[in-house]
Amino acid sequence: MAEKIILDCDPGHDDAIALLLAHGDPGIELLAVTTVAGNQTLPKVTRNALSVATLAGITGVPFAAGADRPLLRAAAVAADIHGDTGLDGPELPEPAFDVVDTHAVDLIIDTVLAHEPGTVTLVPTGALTNIALAARRAPEIVERVRRVVLMGGAVHGGNLTPAAEFNIAIDPEAAEIVFGAGWEVVMVGLDLTHQALATPEVRRAIRAVGTGPARFVDELLEFFEHSYRAAQGFDAPPVHDPCAVAHVIDPTVVRTVPAPIVVETAGRYTAGMTVTDLRGPAPQGCRTHAALELDHGRFWDLVTGALARIGEPSLTASERPA
Amino acid sequence: MAEKIILDCDPGHDDAIALLLAHGDPGIELLAVTTVAGNQTLPKVTRNALSVATLAGITGVPFAAGADRPLLRAAAVAADIHGDTGLDGPELPEPAFDVVDTHAVDLIIDTVLAHEPGTVTLVPTGALTNIALAARRAPEIVERVRRVVLMGGAVHGGNLTPAAEFNIAIDPEAAEIVFGAGWEVVMVGLDLTHQALATPEVRRAIRAVGTGPARFVDELLEFFEHSYRAAQGFDAPPVHDPCAVAHVIDPTVVRTVPAPIVVETAGRYTAGMTVTDLRGPAPQGCRTHAALELDHGRFWDLVTGALARIGEPSLTASERPA
Amino acid sequence: MAEKIILDCDPGHDDAIALLLAHGDPGIELLAVTTVAGNQTLPKVTRNALSVATLAGITGVPFAAGADRPLLRAAAVAADIHGDTGLDGPELPEPAFDVVDTHAVDLIIDTVLAHEPGTVTLVPTGALTNIALAARRAPEIVERVRRVVLMGGAVHGGNLTPAAEFNIAIDPEAAEIVFGAGWEVVMVGLDLTHQALATPEVRRAIRAVGTGPARFVDELLEFFEHSYRAAQGFDAPPVHDPCAVAHVIDPTVVRTVPAPIVVETAGRYTAGMTVTDLRGPAPQGCRTHAALELDHGRFWDLVTGALARIGEPSLTASERPA
Amino acid sequence: MAEKIILDCDPGHDDAIALLLAHGDPGIELLAVTTVAGNQTLPKVTRNALSVATLAGITGVPFAAGADRPLLRAAAVAADIHGDTGLDGPELPEPAFDVVDTHAVDLIIDTVLAHEPGTVTLVPTGALTNIALAARRAPEIVERVRRVVLMGGAVHGGNLTPAAEFNIAIDPEAAEIVFGAGWEVVMVGLDLTHQALATPEVRRAIRAVGTGPARFVDELLEFFEHSYRAAQGFDAPPVHDPCAVAHVIDPTVVRTVPAPIVVETAGRYTAGMTVTDLRGPAPQGCRTHAALELDHGRFWDLVTGALARIGEPSLTASERPA
Repeated sequence: MAEKIILDCDPGHDDAIALLLAHGDPGIELLAVTTVAGNQTLPKVTRNALSVATLAGITGVPFAAGADRPLLRAAAVAADIHGDTGLDGPELPEPAFDVVDTHAVDLIIDTVLAHEPGTVTLVPTGALTNIALAARRAPEIVERVRRVVLMGGAVHGGNLTPAAEFNIAIDPEAAEIVFGAGWEVVMVGLDLTHQALATPEVRRAIRAVGTGPARFVDELLEFFEHSYRAAQGFDAPPVHDPCAVAHVIDPTVVRTVPAPIVVETAGRYTAGMTVTDLRGPAPQGCRTHAALELDHGRFWDLVTGALARIGEPSLTASERPA
Repeated sequence: MAEKIILDCDPGHDDAIALLLAHGDPGIELLAVTTVAGNQTLPKVTRNALSVATLAGITGVPFAAGADRPLLRAAAVAADIHGDTGLDGPELPEPAFDVVDTHAVDLIIDTVLAHEPGTVTLVPTGALTNIALAARRAPEIVERVRRVVLMGGAVHGGNLTPAAEFNIAIDPEAAEIVFGAGWEVVMVGLDLTHQALATPEVRRAIRAVGTGPARFVDELLEFFEHSYRAAQGFDAPPVHDPCAVAHVIDPTVVRTVPAPIVVETAGRYTAGMTVTDLRGPAPQGCRTHAALELDHGRFWDLVTGALARIGEPSLTASERPA
Repeated sequence: MAEKIILDCDPGHDDAIALLLAHGDPGIELLAVTTVAGNQTLPKVTRNALSVATLAGITGVPFAAGADRPLLRAAAVAADIHGDTGLDGPELPEPAFDVVDTHAVDLIIDTVLAHEPGTVTLVPTGALTNIALAARRAPEIVERVRRVVLMGGAVHGGNLTPAAEFNIAIDPEAAEIVFGAGWEVVMVGLDLTHQALATPEVRRAIRAVGTGPARFVDELLEFFEHSYRAAQGFDAPPVHDPCAVAHVIDPTVVRTVPAPIVVETAGRYTAGMTVTDLRGPAPQGCRTHAALELDHGRFWDLVTGALARIGEPSLTASERPA
Repeated sequence: MAEKIILDCDPGHDDAIALLLAHGDPGIELLAVTTVAGNQTLPKVTRNALSVATLAGITGVPFAAGADRPLLRAAAVAADIHGDTGLDGPELPEPAFDVVDTHAVDLIIDTVLAHEPGTVTLVPTGALTNIALAARRAPEIVERVRRVVLMGGAVHGGNLTPAAEFNIAIDPEAAEIVFGAGWEVVMVGLDLTHQALATPEVRRAIRAVGTGPARFVDELLEFFEHSYRAAQGFDAPPVHDPCAVAHVIDPTVVRTVPAPIVVETAGRYTAGMTVTDLRGPAPQGCRTHAALELDHGRFWDLVTGALARIGEPSLTASERPA
């Protein structure tokens, strides 16, 4: 049976691919898509989410915009990685539909409460602001959610700072709420996602799908490759966010270990660090998990398989009714 | 014209008196009452709010329950001051009505958006969790709210700790959001409220009103006097929360000065301190204000006047329809 | 019997007056003078100390230079208050003698160990770097020192920041060591020193002494008055440092209360704050004290009396042998 | 030419082996040995240092005791790893000599100043309290020291806490001073020392030396193996401190990379973490280095070689003159 998920994202090149994977893989039932400021401003990432959905022919799934800034800290964006639009590179279709008239936080709460307890997985691939606000605004969702599988953090090292990963570092207080809420949390962090490199072979396999969405992904990766080489010296770009979706589809593709994880909010050099205790076996009942090992081949097979399944949506953006 | 307010409280002895003052004074139009964990747990303070409203004959005003814990920190209560129920001392009537089926955060947002911009004042007399969640969940309310007149903080000194006042200290991160949001904030803190002592003369004047609600207030003050003497060495108890309402009614009763105010969240000994800069004149456009001087006589006249106006509500709690 | 003191200072206008008071009052036996970076750089404040001693005819007292920067933080100076030399205003004589070939920290340790236990009082009027280094380098001095009477900190408010006084704020970690070492500490802070204003009457009384050193003090106060008016809006300048010396001479001139005092080192807005707990009586055995009330008349009588006693040193600076 | 070093240590099992390596290897000229509280209290580690020196026949090298506690934090010891004496396991000889009548901080300063600039390497293998005090008490040594090669910290992970290594974690403020002083610092941290395992082969090679000091080392390792298995689940114990000495002897045995390193002092979960930026090439002129790769065979060859060279000191402890 397909896993029901709410994808909370800030597209973002890799968020876009995560959305396509979630849409195209039969192991996922996409209940809702919510957006949060992060890779770019809220209006930009929200528009990007709608454009990608339009391009992929996603229908019948509510999209909602959420927090336009972190809980406490000043807003930051990642224009060095994702460009001025948040999704620089390919040409994007005009969105064929709009967000619903509900705030992301409310849509998350309502969606979780509308389904059976233990059936809805939250998949945040941006800052954790919406998820934190939902957990505080409606604490009753914490025990109803199946688990939270998030892209963010790292066992070792960071990207925005030497010790902290971007999604956590831009809203550490939200992350502290989410990691400490009591639900099961799977941290798909840099340790894992830096294994998910879009190598030339991967690029070729994606191009071989031959559809519009596949070409779109190829163009995303083209831009992403350039910005990651310039900003962080990578040969092939790490494609973070789909790894979280892949773990939901098949936990053997993204292997995890249980480990205590807490979020540093007070450090001068370490704010936003996900402090992970790997010094010994995790204590009994440990509800936080760190992703450590990727099956690179099977991961990219999931992505290309999803693209193949999405195929060529019958209407292009410009042909769709508004 | 009466000032429209939303009272966000955690009754709490002085919260109860604040509610009676807001209800009984013609200068206030009470739009909604919301509750937040603080002096006691959320269920207790919510029930207390409903009981006080029942006793005072408040009808037609929506009551809603809000956050059951601070944004980031572990919950704390003030049982040493307010007792096990949060309103120890008098016997409380059974609530004659219930909270609405809306979360406090949503009720605050909806109420602000339903009225003309610049007409609704928020009056928080507990932790600022609900207000902070509302400001982050719906940032558009920040410029629509007339101002925030809160009981909390202090220019100098504290009560929960040497440097921090209870309402701010139990949720400093929420306070940081509220003080930093950009709206006008009036801090009615300990510097002011420690002038609002319920002296024997005040107690006599309240008893002289001769009604059930006045007797109730007298019993509240009897308990409050004992707990403040035992816990903090006061002769007569400081009655904090009605001071914020009094400032809304008449700013000359609670006099303020503009001053930059920020909330410390990172200190080892100072978390929750409202750092107020009184070293020189406030900069142009300063939107935070500190209350410094109380007109003691007129303040208590407002309270006794409100009690006299409330009179003897015709229906007792048990006679009311649910 | 005269109180033996080591004066640890960073002259600085008020440090200079403190040195003159310590030299001229029969209640004080000046064992040593040490300098520390603060109001200006170490070379400047050291030269200033030697110049003032030369002008006042201080002989037979070792002077030593100490720490040139705070323990952990970057160095800061108070040029807005003390000018570019640290003692702007009067013309200073060439120093007639030089510092000893011993570091201030070693001179403090050696001097304390060379006298009977319980007889030497440390009087720091600058950053506490030297005192902290001495306490860590030779912890055995802690129980031998009679007490530490320091100018610094405040119960309420600050000057460098809204919450912190300059001497503590520039080296909070040193202050944490000193306040927490276990010896008796008397904090003569802004609450007290802002009462020690050099009013026009005070200025007249000093000028009436009619000596060179008195004229020098008058010129110091002339400059100090201008810089305090410009920087902090004072009518008459507060003369901080001699208050600590005055407390050693006569504790009834600078009255104190015992109170727990800790130094905040971690706050974003409160680093360097001396958090003082005045919420109730101090616990038994409390070894920290806060100065709260100055006898303004008797304080200035001590200063003018000391100047009168110093008289007109027989040798001017230019006549002295090197 | 032999490298001149001052060994600043807290023996401690691996400190003892570091001392033997420094004494027995011709590439090292041991100028002084200083002690600091850490693995055990100052009296215990000082006595241990003297006992080990006695056993190894070290003569003509001054030993001095230093700081008995960290700069700011409360003292902590590592009895779980090193036992109640700090050197549990072997029987120790009575020390045949005593510390000099100079504080470690002064001995460090004097020794550095007594040698040519750029010739003395500091090798701290405990908390950095002495080194930090020396750098602040006599800043002129910073540019005279050749470099600081320290055992402590880690690029990734910790042992006392998930993010911090013991030597740094017990005195983070001292470490901040040392890493930030401006001299060249080589961090030989857990990344490196967890490669320096005393495997059964290593143990056999050491026993094969056949001398008293070699038997002593074998007994140390026997105890160390048990405590590391019990406390941290290691099969063979990591022998940290000699790795720093080995780097001084031969930098190709302990390979390093330049990288910016700062010490976190403010975190809730990360205090004492050595935050190392390995995200890209180190900036020009980077003066901090992280040890990453050990040549395991050559490292242990250095240790057994030193033991062989030490041989059987002619006098046993009981035979030595006091």
